Amino acid sequence: MSSTTDRADQTDPIAAVQRRVTLADIATEAGLSLATVSKVLNGRSDVSELTRARVEKLLHSHGYLRRATAVASGSARMVELLFHELESEWAIEIIRGVERVARQAGISLIVTESGDRHSPGHAWIDGVLSRRPIGVILVFSDLDPQTKHKLRSRGVNFVVVDPADEPEPDVASIGSANWAGGFAAAQHLLSLGHRRIGMISGPDDMLCSVARVDGYRSALERAGVSFDAELVRVGDFHVDGGRRGASELLDLPDPPTAIFAGSDLQALGVYEAARPRGVRVPEDLSVVGYDDLRFARWVGPPLTTIRQPLGEMAETAARMLIRMSEDPDAPLNQRFDLATSLVVRASTAPPARRADGAGL
Amino acid sequence: MSSTTDRADQTDPIAAVQRRVTLADIATEAGLSLATVSKVLNGRSDVSELTRARVEKLLHSHGYLRRATAVASGSARMVELLFHELESEWAIEIIRGVERVARQAGISLIVTESGDRHSPGHAWIDGVLSRRPIGVILVFSDLDPQTKHKLRSRGVNFVVVDPADEPEPDVASIGSANWAGGFAAAQHLLSLGHRRIGMISGPDDMLCSVARVDGYRSALERAGVSFDAELVRVGDFHVDGGRRGASELLDLPDPPTAIFAGSDLQALGVYEAARPRGVRVPEDLSVVGYDDLRFARWVGPPLTTIRQPLGEMAETAARMLIRMSEDPDAPLNQRFDLATSLVVRASTAPPARRADGAGL
Repeated sequence: MSSTTDRADQTDPIAAVQRRVTLADIATEAGLSLATVSKVLNGRSDVSELTRARVEKLLHSHGYLRRATAVASGSARMVELLFHELESEWAIEIIRGVERVARQAGISLIVTESGDRHSPGHAWIDGVLSRRPIGVILVFSDLDPQTKHKLRSRGVNFVVVDPADEPEPDVASIGSANWAGGFAAAQHLLSLGHRRIGMISGPDDMLCSVARVDGYRSALERAGVSFDAELVRVGDFHVDGGRRGASELLDLPDPPTAIFAGSDLQALGVYEAARPRGVRVPEDLSVVGYDDLRFARWVGPPLTTIRQPLGEMAETAARMLIRMSEDPDAPLNQRFDLATSLVVRASTAPPARRADGAGL
Repeated sequence: MSSTTDRADQTDPIAAVQRRVTLADIATEAGLSLATVSKVLNGRSDVSELTRARVEKLLHSHGYLRRATAVASGSARMVELLFHELESEWAIEIIRGVERVARQAGISLIVTESGDRHSPGHAWIDGVLSRRPIGVILVFSDLDPQTKHKLRSRGVNFVVVDPADEPEPDVASIGSANWAGGFAAAQHLLSLGHRRIGMISGPDDMLCSVARVDGYRSALERAGVSFDAELVRVGDFHVDGGRRGASELLDLPDPPTAIFAGSDLQALGVYEAARPRGVRVPEDLSVVGYDDLRFARWVGPPLTTIRQPLGEMAETAARMLIRMSEDPDAPLNQRFDLATSLVVRASTAPPARRADGAGL
C-alpha cells in the first residue's frame, strides 16, 4: 500500500467527525474497499475509470466535503495558481502578488497554464487532486459544477481572480471596479473636450469587458453625448485586437478623436494602427489604456490608463485562501472588488480643431 | 509515524542498491534510528538542530547520493523554479518556458522568489527537502557547496539559468552568448558610423555583464576605436541604473553619440535621461538594449536590441532536469550557451554631424 493512501486513511476520520457522511459509508454503498475510495479521493491513477465514476457520483450525491484544515496538516503546503494563458503581460503581476503572500506564510506556489479560457482540463484536475494544495486561485475562469465539487470534496478551496463571467453564488472572487474604470476613462476624454470617442472592448463574453463598455457608455450619456454603436469594436485584450479595432475606427469617414482601448495591450495596437496612417498620438488621437502594466509608462508616448491593482488583487486572493484553510468558519464565497484609478500620462490631449487638419 | 517517513523507508532501499553507503550505515554510525535519519533526509522539522547537523555531516562525508529516479516515482512530480527576484520583466518569459515543458511532461511547476541574489535562504532549502521535486532551476545564482550537497543527497538535481557567476564544474547551466551579444551591439553602432560609444553594464559581479562589456570592447578595438573607460558606467539591469549611467554619460563635456545599454530596462532608463535634456533618440543618440523583452518593440522609439532567447533557455533547462531525473546516465553538469542575435528597430541611426548641432 502506498504512502498516499496511508495519509488519506489517517486524516479522513478527523475530517469525518465534522461531516454527515464518512468515507466508510461511501465504500459500503459502492461495494468497494475503503482503500479504493481513498484512492479516488486522492487522485491516484491505479483505479479504473468505471470505479472512479461510481465513487465520484456517490461523493457528489452525498455532498461529501472535507475541510482544508484536515488535509493541509500533512507535509508541504501548496497553493495553485491557474492561468488560462501566461502569455498576457499581467500574469507576472498576479504571480508576484500571490508568491509574496504565500512565501510569507511558508506555502509554496504552483503555477499552471490551462490553455483554455473556459475549462482547466482533466490533466490539471487530476494533478490537483493528487497534489492536494490548500487551495486554487483561478485567473479569469470559474469552474463547472462537477469540478467544483471534485475540489471541495477534497477540501481544496478556490478563489477566482478577475472573473470572466458572473461567478456562481458559492464561489469566492476578487475583481476590480471595471464599470467605474470604464466610466473614468470616458470621463477623462470628455473633460478634455472629446465628443467622438471610440472604444475597443475585450471579448464580449467576458464580464469585465462588458462592465467597462457600460461604464464608458454611461459616462457619455451623462455628458449628453449619444452612444454610437459604430464606434465600439470588439477586441481580444491583445495587441492584435487593438490594431484591428483601431484600423476600422480610423478608416471611418468620420473617425473618432479619441479611443478608449479597453486594455494596455490593445492601446499598443491602437498606436500601431495610428502610426502608418500618419495619425499622431495625442495630437490627432487621444488613447486611454486599461490595466497600468509596468510598460505603460515607457511606451511612446507614455500611456494614460486606468490602473487595475493586479498585485493587490492577487495578494487578497492568496490571503482569502489561506484563511479558508486555517479557519473552519471562514466564508467560502466572499467577493471583493478593488478600486481602479485614472493615471494620466502623455497619450491624451484636447482634440485638434478640424480646421487644423487632423491627420496632417 | 507519518506517511512522509513511510515513503522514505520504502524508497531508500531501492536507491541504496545503486550506492556505496546506505541510510542504515549512516544511522549506525550516528547512533540514531533509521527513522530519524530519514526524517533529516526528508526535511522534516521534528528533529533537533544538533541531530540534523550530525546526520548532514555524515551524509556529506560519505558522499551519500540518491538518484532522482528513485525519489520521483512516488506521488505528484514537481520542478522548482527559483528567482532571486520576480520583479524583473523577463521572469515571465522564463516561467512560460519552464511551465510549457513541465506541463507536457505532467510535472507541476513551483515558483519562488528568494529575495537574495547570492543565496536562496534556509526556509527555501528546507521547503525543497520536504517537497522533494525532481529538480530545481535556479535563475542567476549558483548554490554554495553545502546546499548543493543537501539537494544531491536527496536526489534533487539542479540547473542554473543565466548564471551570474562562473558555475562550478559540477553544475549544469544554460546561458546565452553574452560576449557575442555585446560584440554584435557595438558592431552595429560602429557600422552606422559611431565612434564615441558609451556602455552601461549590469552589476560588475555578474558574469553575463562582464562578458557583454568584453564583447563591446573587442568590437571597438577590432574597428580601431580605442577603449575609453570613462564611457563605461555600471548599472543594475533596471531602469534606474540606466537613467543614472546615461545621465552621467550625457553630461560629459564630450558625450557619446550612442549608448549600448546592457539591458532593455536600462535602455528605457537611457530614454528617460535623454528626454529632459532635449536629446532625441535616434537623431542625437542611438540606443541599443539587451534581452528583447516583449515591450521592446512598443517603446518610443521601438528599441534596437540583442535578442536573448529566454524562453528557449528556460525550456532547455526544464528538459535537462527531466532527463536527469529519468535517465540515470544523464550527465549532471552539462552546459549550453544559446545564440543571441541583433534585432534592429528604430532607436539606432547614423550619428548626426556635430555641425548640425546635436541636441537640437
